[in-house]
Amino acid sequence: MRIESVALDNADPLATYREAFDLPQGLIYLDGNSLGALPRAVRDTLSKTVEVEWGQDLIKSWNTHDWINLPESVGEKIAPLLGAESGQVICTDSTSINLFKLIVAALQLRPGRRKILSQVDNFPTDLYMAQGIEALLGADRAQLVTVSAEEITASIDAETALVMLTHVNFRDGQIHDMAGVTRAAHEHGALVLWDLSHSTGAMPLALDALEVDFATGCGYKYLNGGPGAPAYIYVNRGHQDEAVQPLFGWMGHADAFSFSPDYQPAEGVWRFVTGTPSVIAMQALSAALDLFAGIDLEQVRQKSEVLTTRFIDSLVDCPELELISPAAAAARGSQVSFRHPQGYAIVQALAAAGVIGDYRDPGILRFGFSPLYTSFTEAEEAARLLRDILTSQSYLEPAFQVRQTVT
Amino acid sequence: MRIESVALDNADPLATYREAFDLPQGLIYLDGNSLGALPRAVRDTLSKTVEVEWGQDLIKSWNTHDWINLPESVGEKIAPLLGAESGQVICTDSTSINLFKLIVAALQLRPGRRKILSQVDNFPTDLYMAQGIEALLGADRAQLVTVSAEEITASIDAETALVMLTHVNFRDGQIHDMAGVTRAAHEHGALVLWDLSHSTGAMPLALDALEVDFATGCGYKYLNGGPGAPAYIYVNRGHQDEAVQPLFGWMGHADAFSFSPDYQPAEGVWRFVTGTPSVIAMQALSAALDLFAGIDLEQVRQKSEVLTTRFIDSLVDCPELELISPAAAAARGSQVSFRHPQGYAIVQALAAAGVIGDYRDPGILRFGFSPLYTSFTEAEEAARLLRDILTSQSYLEPAFQVRQTVT
Repeated sequence: MRIESVALDNADPLATYREAFDLPQGLIYLDGNSLGALPRAVRDTLSKTVEVEWGQDLIKSWNTHDWINLPESVGEKIAPLLGAESGQVICTDSTSINLFKLIVAALQLRPGRRKILSQVDNFPTDLYMAQGIEALLGADRAQLVTVSAEEITASIDAETALVMLTHVNFRDGQIHDMAGVTRAAHEHGALVLWDLSHSTGAMPLALDALEVDFATGCGYKYLNGGPGAPAYIYVNRGHQDEAVQPLFGWMGHADAFSFSPDYQPAEGVWRFVTGTPSVIAMQALSAALDLFAGIDLEQVRQKSEVLTTRFIDSLVDCPELELISPAAAAARGSQVSFRHPQGYAIVQALAAAGVIGDYRDPGILRFGFSPLYTSFTEAEEAARLLRDILTSQSYLEPAFQVRQTVT
Repeated sequence: MRIESVALDNADPLATYREAFDLPQGLIYLDGNSLGALPRAVRDTLSKTVEVEWGQDLIKSWNTHDWINLPESVGEKIAPLLGAESGQVICTDSTSINLFKLIVAALQLRPGRRKILSQVDNFPTDLYMAQGIEALLGADRAQLVTVSAEEITASIDAETALVMLTHVNFRDGQIHDMAGVTRAAHEHGALVLWDLSHSTGAMPLALDALEVDFATGCGYKYLNGGPGAPAYIYVNRGHQDEAVQPLFGWMGHADAFSFSPDYQPAEGVWRFVTGTPSVIAMQALSAALDLFAGIDLEQVRQKSEVLTTRFIDSLVDCPELELISPAAAAARGSQVSFRHPQGYAIVQALAAAGVIGDYRDPGILRFGFSPLYTSFTEAEEAARLLRDILTSQSYLEPAFQVRQTVT
């Protein structure tokens, strides 16, 4: 017998978190994998940051409100979500910039090896950053090699300096075997760099236990830090004495306020910071992260699996939707992706009906489920509306066929 | 006869701008060269950005509120402050990161040359970024050479790829001769990169007219964009087809939403963007920049010169203060720096008396004058309080001798 969504919502230990978010009435928001919703606490924190800290306390806030330590204090809030002990995570720059730092640091830890192994269908910016390094350092020092997801492990060899992968694929939501790939890389003397943008906050992670070398990820998806929120870097303690990143900035200096003319990298993960970060953006992310303080990520993951499974199951009678996410919940991130030739128009028609998903070429409808604010009732209602749109073919209306810049 | 400060304030065409800022009652804030004050409009814009754009309109704000074009739309607001025609300025990342992009782009435009010429006393992060490039590319491709301010022009030679200078020195406020240095660099086939962090918004600039190649600068000093506000990049149109920066990110791609696996740099200055920027930080800076829309920078500069000159003149009877800023107003940015062995304690004692300046090793007291909100009366009062503290030696109180992390 199928369990009612209402019953699941009533029994959901995470249900109370919905109230912590400021979501529009009546909207079913299934795009938290692209931009997380606004936590109410962020609104209040930003008022204080702007009006009191900046407006009234001005420059002295670098001390009195500890702005100067935000990269570390925000990083420390992210660490438990990664399964990382203290002192290994720092909040800084964007995911793209951080990939550059980490790829170069990894290449320098593996002199004589030049291969950066990744997946053809990795998120483009990850590949672009490696291509930029290849162009800058030359093919004798860096060479990006991309293979399919299935070929990764077999492609790691003695030439491989770094295996760089996005843990949960942005398009289809497929999860890589982090334990297996990391182990295989280490067996060949290679390092690993995981992009956790689509994982962090949606599932437990165990970077320390798996002896991951490096990781990065953004703050604006399941972490709800706001549009373009700062990203973070994880550097395993075992590499912190040797790993140096090439973007030498004043905030990553061993003694930033000495204003010494020579760069000396700071101890530990601080050396992965470069210039002055946006305090406003950092404080927003910091407040958003406080929501995770009491949360059991195993519960988050369990709810996520049930949400995505039920959503898929509700749509099995729509053969025109090709499921491109893994059918097995364990292999799937907190998103469901389908392919349909009219994918773009269907996403538009759904938005008009009050369900926000998003679209990615070619023909892919993506639906993200944020266990902190997505209810079982919403997932069911979204599936029902999607089925109605497919049945009625209302997506063929001209208004839904016009392409906009984004989503 | 000495003109009264009150009379100058009454005649000041910029006096009304003070009301546009949310400054604490009774505080004399002379640190706008480090962190600009809070424009009231920023407060309102941020409420709207957070509550309406993020909170209610969510992901679709990338289109409907044109978040996607913020790097360009904010850049276009900065362009007139630089004396730059449209299409050459983009808002992105931090000054440090942008220096990296521009130094590497410049080196690639001058193959066979490796010398990056700068000033010993340049802002440390500028030197560090060049040192990072040197370490990354090797001494045969990049070599930082630093000389004193006076030796710059004579040190430019046929080996020089790039002359990289901060236009207004952070410590003493000395202004480089941008026209002369740029001309000398070009005569030797070298390029120039100006860091305008301490200039923009405080004086007119003429990048196009002087045929400057590259420039960058931060958004949080005289531009009042908030702590750690995003920085900008200027790329002279003449270099835009050839110059490529190495931090290949998805937002700098020719067709960002194609999610193509191969990087193709965007047309024009957009290729200098890397990853997703903080929308909140960008919108804050955008609102702050609107203040400059009707402003004549010649008036700003004139007021700045009178403010700093009168401040210096009010303290000529304090021989224990060694003026390290240029005595000639034309050679001085919008700041006044003195040296005193008890500099740190004096800055603390002044803060206790309601005057915020800042301190930089070794022994330097810095006072910034922001013509948009600093009045002549305040400058006079600050000088009087500083003189009192020096006379009474109240700075010797133990509380003023304790060093904090910052300022």
